Amino acid sequence: MSGRLTVIGLGPGDACWLTPQADAALATAEAIYGYGAYLDRVPVRPGQARCPSDNREEQARAVAALAHAANGANVAVVSGGDPGVFAMAAAVCAEIEAGPPVWRELDVAIVPGITAMLAVAARVGAPLGHDFCALSLSDNLKPWELIEQRLEAAAGAGFVIAIYNPVSRARPWQLGVAFERVGRLLPGSTPVVFGRAIGRADEHVEVTTLGAAKSTAADMATLVIVGSASTRIVAREGRTPLVYTPRAMARTDQ
Amino acid sequence: MSGRLTVIGLGPGDACWLTPQADAALATAEAIYGYGAYLDRVPVRPGQARCPSDNREEQARAVAALAHAANGANVAVVSGGDPGVFAMAAAVCAEIEAGPPVWRELDVAIVPGITAMLAVAARVGAPLGHDFCALSLSDNLKPWELIEQRLEAAAGAGFVIAIYNPVSRARPWQLGVAFERVGRLLPGSTPVVFGRAIGRADEHVEVTTLGAAKSTAADMATLVIVGSASTRIVAREGRTPLVYTPRAMARTDQ
Repeated sequence: MSGRLTVIGLGPGDACWLTPQADAALATAEAIYGYGAYLDRVPVRPGQARCPSDNREEQARAVAALAHAANGANVAVVSGGDPGVFAMAAAVCAEIEAGPPVWRELDVAIVPGITAMLAVAARVGAPLGHDFCALSLSDNLKPWELIEQRLEAAAGAGFVIAIYNPVSRARPWQLGVAFERVGRLLPGSTPVVFGRAIGRADEHVEVTTLGAAKSTAADMATLVIVGSASTRIVAREGRTPLVYTPRAMARTDQ
Repeated sequence: MSGRLTVIGLGPGDACWLTPQADAALATAEAIYGYGAYLDRVPVRPGQARCPSDNREEQARAVAALAHAANGANVAVVSGGDPGVFAMAAAVCAEIEAGPPVWRELDVAIVPGITAMLAVAARVGAPLGHDFCALSLSDNLKPWELIEQRLEAAAGAGFVIAIYNPVSRARPWQLGVAFERVGRLLPGSTPVVFGRAIGRADEHVEVTTLGAAKSTAADMATLVIVGSASTRIVAREGRTPLVYTPRAMARTDQ
């Protein structure tokens, strides 16, 4: 079995975040699978097959890429951000587990990338500077009740919360409900960051508070960070405020 | 005020994870501050001052770098991994808030990096493939009782847990207690990953279970990932097993 499958994180929209490891893996692949919008970010190379698919077809894409690799090819699958965070690496692992035994003999490698929450955090300071969690708000793949339980557990325990997939056309209401749920546990002054299309020409970052945050400020390209009770906003004249969560917690600050 | 301070994430130990953005920021800095072991990873450039300090001196380092930048210099501060995750970006923001008003006029930029949990996850598959949290086990900066509460909240709500700073010479006992606490809420078969010195010559990765995990397998250079009840291990003959957390959750799988 000489096939190889590499799952590659492209990072957020700007090539300044594409690691040398990802660049090298892209250059040597014989075929590249991915959601069309991510594949469009990969330079066209002669002799390299490009296999775009829709963004709802992760499992089918994983199966196609694994089958291609099992024929002896050096195949890549690309994800935006990091492939291990709400992305293709888990889909590939699940299909390896469910698939024919020869798929377990493939050389499989995962190339990490800058995931969206790190890029959004960097734009405003260090909101993820202390304990935090990453949560997908999509209930396509898990029940909404569980999402609410996790939001409440995280906010109640003092984790900063990075919200992936905050809204979609089919789910316009969930972020508003999420704000309402965590708002029962956190002060209205808690900082909230909306980071949209980071690293792309239409990038937009907004710093607000839980009391003032409007769920309509988010779309499918947005990553939302909800601070903890410790998270702070530092105003700066003529500049975007800094948002950070202190590394140190006073003994009384629980 | 013409000074500039850039807080740069170097990623884990291997230069294959240094982003072009980080590389460019390092090349143009007039002075670079950082913990000595991280600074050693930055190529020496003529005319560029190097200002190493000890790893416990984050706040003093931030103050020195800010004061230097406020003199009009282009100053960089380096962190391993991502500077926004348990690292220098929050220290810099805290000192800007506490410091003289002119520090708020500085050009401050954060350059994200591959944080340890993403690199460790990539080595074994996709353990962070669904909702997860990142938690520092160090009680230098917060009370141990709070750490226990967060571990229990995260494990109880079904988050995978990435544990930063699992042990130190002064804290040899905490990881064992952490395993015991989450072991009350999770089955002994829950996957656990130890990732040590990822990307360095002495890299070591171990996949085990919560029932079999020994806290002595971790040292200061180790990142530990504790799965959720959904996390799976896929055995592969002659290869490291894959570890992943499924993206999809069956409606009964709560």
